[in-house]
Amino acid sequence: MDKILTGEDVLLWLDKERTYLVKAEIGKQFHTHKGFLLFDDIIGKPWGSSFRTNLGAIFYALPPLIRDRVLKTDRRTQVLYPKDISYILYQLGISNGSKVVEAGTGSGALTISLANIVKPDGKIFTYEIDERSQKISKINIERASLSSYVEMKLRDICLGIDEKNIDGVILDLATPWLVVPHVWQVLKGGGVFISFSPTIEQVMKTVYEIEKYPFIDIETVELILRKITVAENRTRPETLMIGHSGYLTITRKIIS
Amino acid sequence: MDKILTGEDVLLWLDKERTYLVKAEIGKQFHTHKGFLLFDDIIGKPWGSSFRTNLGAIFYALPPLIRDRVLKTDRRTQVLYPKDISYILYQLGISNGSKVVEAGTGSGALTISLANIVKPDGKIFTYEIDERSQKISKINIERASLSSYVEMKLRDICLGIDEKNIDGVILDLATPWLVVPHVWQVLKGGGVFISFSPTIEQVMKTVYEIEKYPFIDIETVELILRKITVAENRTRPETLMIGHSGYLTITRKIIS
Amino acid sequence: MDKILTGEDVLLWLDKERTYLVKAEIGKQFHTHKGFLLFDDIIGKPWGSSFRTNLGAIFYALPPLIRDRVLKTDRRTQVLYPKDISYILYQLGISNGSKVVEAGTGSGALTISLANIVKPDGKIFTYEIDERSQKISKINIERASLSSYVEMKLRDICLGIDEKNIDGVILDLATPWLVVPHVWQVLKGGGVFISFSPTIEQVMKTVYEIEKYPFIDIETVELILRKITVAENRTRPETLMIGHSGYLTITRKIIS
Amino acid sequence: MDKILTGEDVLLWLDKERTYLVKAEIGKQFHTHKGFLLFDDIIGKPWGSSFRTNLGAIFYALPPLIRDRVLKTDRRTQVLYPKDISYILYQLGISNGSKVVEAGTGSGALTISLANIVKPDGKIFTYEIDERSQKISKINIERASLSSYVEMKLRDICLGIDEKNIDGVILDLATPWLVVPHVWQVLKGGGVFISFSPTIEQVMKTVYEIEKYPFIDIETVELILRKITVAENRTRPETLMIGHSGYLTITRKIIS
Repeated sequence: MDKILTGEDVLLWLDKERTYLVKAEIGKQFHTHKGFLLFDDIIGKPWGSSFRTNLGAIFYALPPLIRDRVLKTDRRTQVLYPKDISYILYQLGISNGSKVVEAGTGSGALTISLANIVKPDGKIFTYEIDERSQKISKINIERASLSSYVEMKLRDICLGIDEKNIDGVILDLATPWLVVPHVWQVLKGGGVFISFSPTIEQVMKTVYEIEKYPFIDIETVELILRKITVAENRTRPETLMIGHSGYLTITRKIIS
Repeated sequence: MDKILTGEDVLLWLDKERTYLVKAEIGKQFHTHKGFLLFDDIIGKPWGSSFRTNLGAIFYALPPLIRDRVLKTDRRTQVLYPKDISYILYQLGISNGSKVVEAGTGSGALTISLANIVKPDGKIFTYEIDERSQKISKINIERASLSSYVEMKLRDICLGIDEKNIDGVILDLATPWLVVPHVWQVLKGGGVFISFSPTIEQVMKTVYEIEKYPFIDIETVELILRKITVAENRTRPETLMIGHSGYLTITRKIIS
Repeated sequence: MDKILTGEDVLLWLDKERTYLVKAEIGKQFHTHKGFLLFDDIIGKPWGSSFRTNLGAIFYALPPLIRDRVLKTDRRTQVLYPKDISYILYQLGISNGSKVVEAGTGSGALTISLANIVKPDGKIFTYEIDERSQKISKINIERASLSSYVEMKLRDICLGIDEKNIDGVILDLATPWLVVPHVWQVLKGGGVFISFSPTIEQVMKTVYEIEKYPFIDIETVELILRKITVAENRTRPETLMIGHSGYLTITRKIIS
Repeated sequence: MDKILTGEDVLLWLDKERTYLVKAEIGKQFHTHKGFLLFDDIIGKPWGSSFRTNLGAIFYALPPLIRDRVLKTDRRTQVLYPKDISYILYQLGISNGSKVVEAGTGSGALTISLANIVKPDGKIFTYEIDERSQKISKINIERASLSSYVEMKLRDICLGIDEKNIDGVILDLATPWLVVPHVWQVLKGGGVFISFSPTIEQVMKTVYEIEKYPFIDIETVELILRKITVAENRTRPETLMIGHSGYLTITRKIIS
């Protein structure tokens, strides 16, 4: 059975709202308002084990999945939800070996999701203009042990893209329509371009620009996620929900 | 620039509704009611090129993505949409090297999506009770060159699961609640279990069964995809949409 | 108990998809491919009674509600669904005695819904530019016995509105923004203006025009109706649904 | 032009979130944290006029619509939203003269909406078991000047319904299935029964009970309202939305 090793990241799970991504280090403690745990007790135990704090709270030690890491990235710049990230990954059509251009990097939430798919033979080239965001994302990517598959660029992608022969491009920035000509240049024939935008004006400008270049199969979609409470005599969709994060516009390059 | 090689699968794209997944073979022709193409003209050309039939219709030659292959699998048993498949892949938290149990195989749409993520070091163990379905899915999986990463089993998963130490289990079958005890047995600690069901009664039975075993972080969601028409003075969500495919129940195993 | 009288409209109900709005006349027959009924058998029977045709099919005789009449109006020009009509009626804040301006009349579906609320002391002033539509709507309104509460106008409302001191205005036409100045003129202080438009460009133009005039409490909404199949072990939202009919923009006049 | 009269209710509107339903009384003041207004200044002015407080805040004086009164009813027991109320009113098929049974009364939000439609010749018979709720609803109904059209009953409707020959019954209570036999008894032939329930278990029990009695055209729906922000370069559905209030089950009585 898989054991928790020294130096590994552990997701300590108290309940849905309270999870903690921490590194298991000998001699260290994990402190919460629910009491503390000793990592010496955790290291060597099987993944999925439960641990009781000195105040009696029970935490479960889970192996962090990429989705856990995404939720733990800095949320200040976060706009993409798992529903959007997952659809982007799938529609990009990527897998081990793919080369992908991303902008902006933001907190790195999407970057680590992309890198996790293309590793070990692929690469993510991620553009960001804000130095502070790049620093935060760098930490998140390193922590997920994905740095080898990511090349970070402090550059405005609206001014051009360095790479060539790219499998997919994903944009999550304010003016995606300015990047469309560059996207066409760097994509492989049949390569996929996806743009994520919160407003319909961004979508319209981007689609109208896409239509000026040799792209086909243009589609704009919106994903809505409903959480369902399932409990005896209380089964129903939840009262409050996220009504909108953004639209996804998806298209493929052709050779004119 | 990448060229189309002899023997490769090509997605010939006429429009959104009419695409054809065909093998590029020397001396062969591609026939539609829109005229024919010679593969000899296609082979050696760059991906994304356009080709005109003798009747003047223009086809684009695209490299088939997994999502194209999924759409081309036999639709008779198809219930999972890209919105569901993509969310399953993401929530399973899998990547190169993961081991996943799936049931039922159906047309293989999800199987090839899973295999594409876990290759080259991972494996999909897929259970199916219907021999005819298994044969169809086998062809789809082989065509996607993913057979090495898939082990197919003609077995009722309700009776038990052979594998051990599995990263994720995904069920798309009529009675998922009967499989819950086996799922707990074979998952790693912290491993992910997802069940897809069209009806709320299936969801309720499955959740109530999950609650009898050491699982945490149980969540049921439904994904809704809206297609948006984006065109000058005609921008709006499409009139007709798929209102429901199914619910996804997601949970993680803990050690009791 | 209420009996069906000679000359009354009867909704003959076979199933959800097959209902027939017919007048009960002595000596006449009702013919369908499921056989025929004699109105002489129907007249004098209680509402809600069932009748068997010579071929054995069972029809139920229901009193036609306004919603039944709306479904039976000519569908060629129909874009408003019950979800939209009901929200319009409620947000207009009308009741017996209210005066309402409507354009365009279309098939009269909304007109009869409005008239049914404001009767007997109120009035609907309904504008239409297409003579053929007006004729169809006139028949539908007469059939619903609501002609006394409706004044029909063959006029382009974009050129002006004759009435004054109106409680509410509802527009369902291609260029609602052209009518906004007239709407402000004819509404009472605090009166309600609602515009229904399928596209977001129409909504944007209309809202930007509303913002030039003394209106407050501007809100744009979209209503989505999901039908739920409720049946043992088959309970679920229906697979196909109407994804979009239109947006409703709602606002109230103030005195500048 | 319509003037605000002494003793009338006025909706003082500051912004979408801050509105106040107050009675215009000579010599009285209206106080908020934004300063005060003198009703003597308001009385005699046209509806829709604006008034500036001593602190410079601008309030608009609007005639209260039923929807304003509904929003101002005690919210502690509120579960029905305008989207639900409006659909209920429309599907009930009621107008001036209709007789309707309602339970429970709750805050009276639906009661006043119903009474406003059936006045002056119709009547609402509303059942409530909680005396405190009844008292609150009585105040709300009186304030809306609709008491003459409402008969309030402090009774458990599960034990039976006193009235006969009713046009429509609307239930918003915990155990609607217990009332189904009584509903069938008191409805006219072809009369409409609607039940509002938050959970799917309530819906299932109610539908299965309805199916034991002579009812036809059973339909369960759910209404979803999306609010759209319309503003230059910021047009988009709002981020947070109400994901679920309840299901509506709608059916019509037939004579067995």
